[in-house]
Amino acid sequence: MRAIVINDTGAIKFDPSHPAPVPNSSYALIRPTLAGVCNTDLELAKGYMGYKGVLGHEFTGIVEQAEDSELIGKRVVSEINFACGHCTMCDRGLHRHCQNRTVLGILGASGAFADYLIAPSQNLHIVPDSVSDRQAVFTEPLAAALEIMEQIDINPDQQVAVMGDGKLGLLIAQALATTGCDLTAIGRHENRLSILSGRGLKTAFDSELKGENSIFDVVIDATGSPTGLATALDLVRPCGTIVLKTTVSNPGELDINRIVIDEIQVLGSRCGPFDKALLALEGGGIDVEPMITDVLPLERGVEALKLAEDNTRLKILLEI
Amino acid sequence: MRAIVINDTGAIKFDPSHPAPVPNSSYALIRPTLAGVCNTDLELAKGYMGYKGVLGHEFTGIVEQAEDSELIGKRVVSEINFACGHCTMCDRGLHRHCQNRTVLGILGASGAFADYLIAPSQNLHIVPDSVSDRQAVFTEPLAAALEIMEQIDINPDQQVAVMGDGKLGLLIAQALATTGCDLTAIGRHENRLSILSGRGLKTAFDSELKGENSIFDVVIDATGSPTGLATALDLVRPCGTIVLKTTVSNPGELDINRIVIDEIQVLGSRCGPFDKALLALEGGGIDVEPMITDVLPLERGVEALKLAEDNTRLKILLEI
Repeated sequence: MRAIVINDTGAIKFDPSHPAPVPNSSYALIRPTLAGVCNTDLELAKGYMGYKGVLGHEFTGIVEQAEDSELIGKRVVSEINFACGHCTMCDRGLHRHCQNRTVLGILGASGAFADYLIAPSQNLHIVPDSVSDRQAVFTEPLAAALEIMEQIDINPDQQVAVMGDGKLGLLIAQALATTGCDLTAIGRHENRLSILSGRGLKTAFDSELKGENSIFDVVIDATGSPTGLATALDLVRPCGTIVLKTTVSNPGELDINRIVIDEIQVLGSRCGPFDKALLALEGGGIDVEPMITDVLPLERGVEALKLAEDNTRLKILLEI
Repeated sequence: MRAIVINDTGAIKFDPSHPAPVPNSSYALIRPTLAGVCNTDLELAKGYMGYKGVLGHEFTGIVEQAEDSELIGKRVVSEINFACGHCTMCDRGLHRHCQNRTVLGILGASGAFADYLIAPSQNLHIVPDSVSDRQAVFTEPLAAALEIMEQIDINPDQQVAVMGDGKLGLLIAQALATTGCDLTAIGRHENRLSILSGRGLKTAFDSELKGENSIFDVVIDATGSPTGLATALDLVRPCGTIVLKTTVSNPGELDINRIVIDEIQVLGSRCGPFDKALLALEGGGIDVEPMITDVLPLERGVEALKLAEDNTRLKILLEI
């Protein structure tokens, strides 16, 4: 099959004849139709996680084979953490934190930038008819955005800052704004922030924030920068909450004293609920269309990954 | 008055004729009778917070002057954060986080290692008759230990690790053990851990913990070490909680990715509820007596601070 892979030397290549993955009985064989490039793909391309194999974890596709015949032919998305089902974390119901998990296109599981992928049937969610492929491909990052609301209460009495106007930041800002909280989306790019201001959200350039120290009840760091946490610590009020959404290549220095003295909560946040993400896409409260800047065929996947490093681009999709 | 002070050159001195603080109408004048040396005093002596003036924030004493005549002659302890009452934090009821606060013997407020101190009358708590001076002097650090239970739920279903067998660690371990949680107190000193094992608590040397990675629901870092957080990250399970109890002189490096990927909560924790600390001392569930290793007169305060750096010592008290 055709695939975009990180090969053994760490290079990103288009492989026209990559071996297709073979499902066992609990897995379904899926033909991705549309896939999204995520910043994590760019980090993986730089060596993050030491991943080798087919890239891609954001997709929508059609089930070709599955033990449950009702799944066959269905348009689906798949949760990306493939759990073992019998470790301590799985026993607690924390399947996304399975100690033996593989992760689609990130850790030991062949990804979605290819003609075929396999995923556990239990990970699949059928995409409602009213949700287009171009929307459905955002299910995974939108679920990650919604995870914040699974972890902490966000309400209309709170001042919330979302730092970062990348793809994830824009989804988080839109998702949290639905709670009615007093939200400020903070970024560096006029073209990106305008997507939010166009929807009535309050935006600010990070260079304008000097006087805004210690006023936010909740600060979300979706900057993808090692210095994001330090800035978040400046913005959050005593007893406030910082949610960390992005992984970084290098560990950062941290002012532990500020966290202790001001009793700040720092909360890591990763993958989220696919069912709620699909509901949000169906309801139309989240507009992903303005975030799509490019759609390229799979064969041009290497070019797509390069293009994704360009700050004037946002979501780049691969048509498969 | 007599006082132990950090003078303008940063030296710790016994001053036999230090000016006594003068209370305004909302403040009471208190004669401390017994005070405790805290690790924070040692950090202040090294330059932490840039504090100059009379040291000491753990004490019990007698009210000599107060607008409320019922307070006069009473044996009291005092909350150490002196709030302005009209800032954003005070408006939220977060007086311990007042933006204009002074802090007894730590920030802009003359401390307890002296013949007199002043404190806002509203900060005072009358010590029950059944609580001795030697117990009452532990109210402030015990309140800090109990703060953890104000912030998060600790229950019998949880595995909890308390890292650090210093004074605060021993109080935290005793306090959290009252919840019935499965608690392990982790330290480096046989003599200190034996205080806990003598009360039926499970203890471990930190060198023994190699196989215990990622099993604890809650990890309290009371090590006072910049590397404490990294060790706590090894011990806590995915979706678990780390409570940071100690401030350090140098910021530490932090593996932000571990926090994000495993969705860990890192929570700063500082001062706590004096009323509950006094109740706990009254109830007898917390045994502070074995922690007192030395009692020196105020005149020997400089020596007491030196002695407090000796690992074979625990709580050192000053008789005033």
